[in-house]
Amino acid sequence: MKDADMQQDPPVLLEVHNGVATVTLNRPKTINALSEDMLDALQGTWDALAENRDVKAVILRGAGDHFCAGHNLKEMTARRQDPDGGHQYFNTLFATCSKMMMSMVNLPQPVIAEVTGIATAAGCQLVATCDLAVAADNAKFATSGVNIGLFCSTPMVALSRVVSRKAAMEMLLLGEFISADRALSMGLVNRVVPQDQVAVSAQEMAAAIVGKSPVAVKLGKRAFYAQAEMELAAAYAFAGQTMAENMMAQDAEAGIGAFVSKQPMPGWKGE
Amino acid sequence: MKDADMQQDPPVLLEVHNGVATVTLNRPKTINALSEDMLDALQGTWDALAENRDVKAVILRGAGDHFCAGHNLKEMTARRQDPDGGHQYFNTLFATCSKMMMSMVNLPQPVIAEVTGIATAAGCQLVATCDLAVAADNAKFATSGVNIGLFCSTPMVALSRVVSRKAAMEMLLLGEFISADRALSMGLVNRVVPQDQVAVSAQEMAAAIVGKSPVAVKLGKRAFYAQAEMELAAAYAFAGQTMAENMMAQDAEAGIGAFVSKQPMPGWKGE
Amino acid sequence: MKDADMQQDPPVLLEVHNGVATVTLNRPKTINALSEDMLDALQGTWDALAENRDVKAVILRGAGDHFCAGHNLKEMTARRQDPDGGHQYFNTLFATCSKMMMSMVNLPQPVIAEVTGIATAAGCQLVATCDLAVAADNAKFATSGVNIGLFCSTPMVALSRVVSRKAAMEMLLLGEFISADRALSMGLVNRVVPQDQVAVSAQEMAAAIVGKSPVAVKLGKRAFYAQAEMELAAAYAFAGQTMAENMMAQDAEAGIGAFVSKQPMPGWKGE
Repeated sequence: MKDADMQQDPPVLLEVHNGVATVTLNRPKTINALSEDMLDALQGTWDALAENRDVKAVILRGAGDHFCAGHNLKEMTARRQDPDGGHQYFNTLFATCSKMMMSMVNLPQPVIAEVTGIATAAGCQLVATCDLAVAADNAKFATSGVNIGLFCSTPMVALSRVVSRKAAMEMLLLGEFISADRALSMGLVNRVVPQDQVAVSAQEMAAAIVGKSPVAVKLGKRAFYAQAEMELAAAYAFAGQTMAENMMAQDAEAGIGAFVSKQPMPGWKGE
Repeated sequence: MKDADMQQDPPVLLEVHNGVATVTLNRPKTINALSEDMLDALQGTWDALAENRDVKAVILRGAGDHFCAGHNLKEMTARRQDPDGGHQYFNTLFATCSKMMMSMVNLPQPVIAEVTGIATAAGCQLVATCDLAVAADNAKFATSGVNIGLFCSTPMVALSRVVSRKAAMEMLLLGEFISADRALSMGLVNRVVPQDQVAVSAQEMAAAIVGKSPVAVKLGKRAFYAQAEMELAAAYAFAGQTMAENMMAQDAEAGIGAFVSKQPMPGWKGE
Repeated sequence: MKDADMQQDPPVLLEVHNGVATVTLNRPKTINALSEDMLDALQGTWDALAENRDVKAVILRGAGDHFCAGHNLKEMTARRQDPDGGHQYFNTLFATCSKMMMSMVNLPQPVIAEVTGIATAAGCQLVATCDLAVAADNAKFATSGVNIGLFCSTPMVALSRVVSRKAAMEMLLLGEFISADRALSMGLVNRVVPQDQVAVSAQEMAAAIVGKSPVAVKLGKRAFYAQAEMELAAAYAFAGQTMAENMMAQDAEAGIGAFVSKQPMPGWKGE
């Protein structure tokens, strides 16, 4: 991808305000496709945010009218000229993308997708991977790779963990767009709002999270994905220890103390 | 917790009528909080019911206007005076609570939550843990620990196994109340009815279960949670054996025999 | 089962037209019960279709007014005369049925349930097992074995993997019929249409799949069920390799090539 806009602007914009990091996919001319430079920039963003104690919540959005159209197919097609037809490159590309997606899961702060316009293929995967999602009423979602001979296998990993099997199979096999309302009813997004309110709605969710103890949020998000892969008894053993650990944090002592003595919540200390 | 009501009334009331055990959390002044004595009483109740062949279905409800507000935070806060700040106590407390929740899963009889008013934190976990749930239209659900610095990590174990990931994350991270209708659409409860019909609705569900073969119900409930943690091929191998075992029970022979010869269902023998 | 219709007509009809195989359960007098001969015929059908490169999608339907009423209870009851009361027979029967169901999961082509009338017990399991499902508005679903002393343990394996736990438990414990609309909202089916349009709707879904690259569909379906049983990191590693493999297929090269150069999609080569 050697678009004019790439040479001028960074692929990802990062703004931090009142504890909320807003991460903007900034390639509107290519519908914010996940080109190599975009993937690198996103990975770098998650790595930096993971260490940033000032950030308590993250919003992921797209510049322009759309969220994200998935991988950059032009860039990928160019690598068919490699001696091996691109096989090694594609393997590395999907591993790089998967690592980036898992970095969102492993990020201490919750990530909220703010979706306008289209979210397709790995763009739909980004929505599925975020902890929470708000969609504009004009948003459309698809895992449309099947339409061009490339089944959305990596998006499927995220999608099939947030929606039911028949819903996931429908999106993956038919490749059709689904509306924001359908995405809501199948559990892919949490809220649907008029387009001009989607940013406000995402900010409200983020602000609500900023208002919580970052210790509790961090422990909790990490525990959520860890216990999801455990059997019930192991999950309870792990979650019980997590909760006892949480009880020992200053924030829990102060917060619970205020609650039982009917005082206002304290300012949180964090770690 | 040394409330006046505690010294007079048992923390849990148990009534058995027509094969249905009604278990009532009986600390309305503390919104039926899961204090130590309440947890002990519940554990004892499940242990006793597990051996009681006369009970075919269980209803769990709260005395007063509400279902259950979760752990007893006053009682927990008092233990911060322990030499270790309460760490060992908290570990034991959450392990005790988790054991009690798993005893509901392992109980041979199905458990139906009858929810009025609020069900928060470990109270919401009780609803998630029950096999079935009916909610009054005024019921409200939250995993609100995050609001006071204590992420609802153990409630999350039950919640994340009955609702979709984005819905669970929304409840856990935002800590807001959700309505009975939202709880219905996300799969946390099976039915929503007017408040004055919630007891009747729970009784109807329980009576329907009492009308089934207790052998079939017991085998089936146990198999449900066992196979849920298996891979597909193992789940089928296990379920097939379970079903063949079920076929050998007198109840299946009599029930299927009546069905194929178009006779009324027999009285069930049980085990 | 020695019904008159059995001696005349094969238990399963297979028609292939425009890449779509229509598999019809053909025992309307017994509501298409899964008798031994029906199970054998279905297994043979899946085995044959798995090798048939001309078939790109499969529709499963029932002859007459109904989809399928589950196992053949008369046939099963007759085996209670066996020296062991039928235990070995029942074990083999459920293993045979489970193998048949898993063959649908393992079939390279997607299978679409076209449901009219009743789908009960193992008939409901067939719907749950299909990759996609369309229901007539008069369709009714139940796992009703519990009503006659035989809990639907093997149907539960499929059902509990496509609907939420409380919904599955409600069907399994209460044994009541649910409507097509309820089946839609709980995720058991993808679409509900007027009865006279159910065949057209299933054909539309099948035709949409026939229009995709069979390489992509086959890789994708196989990957879907494989990754569903993996932890997140393993699922991503596997799906990334699957997607790189898919990229190397002629169909992906041609399809993506056409897409990036804004040409119409090519005819797919398949494998």
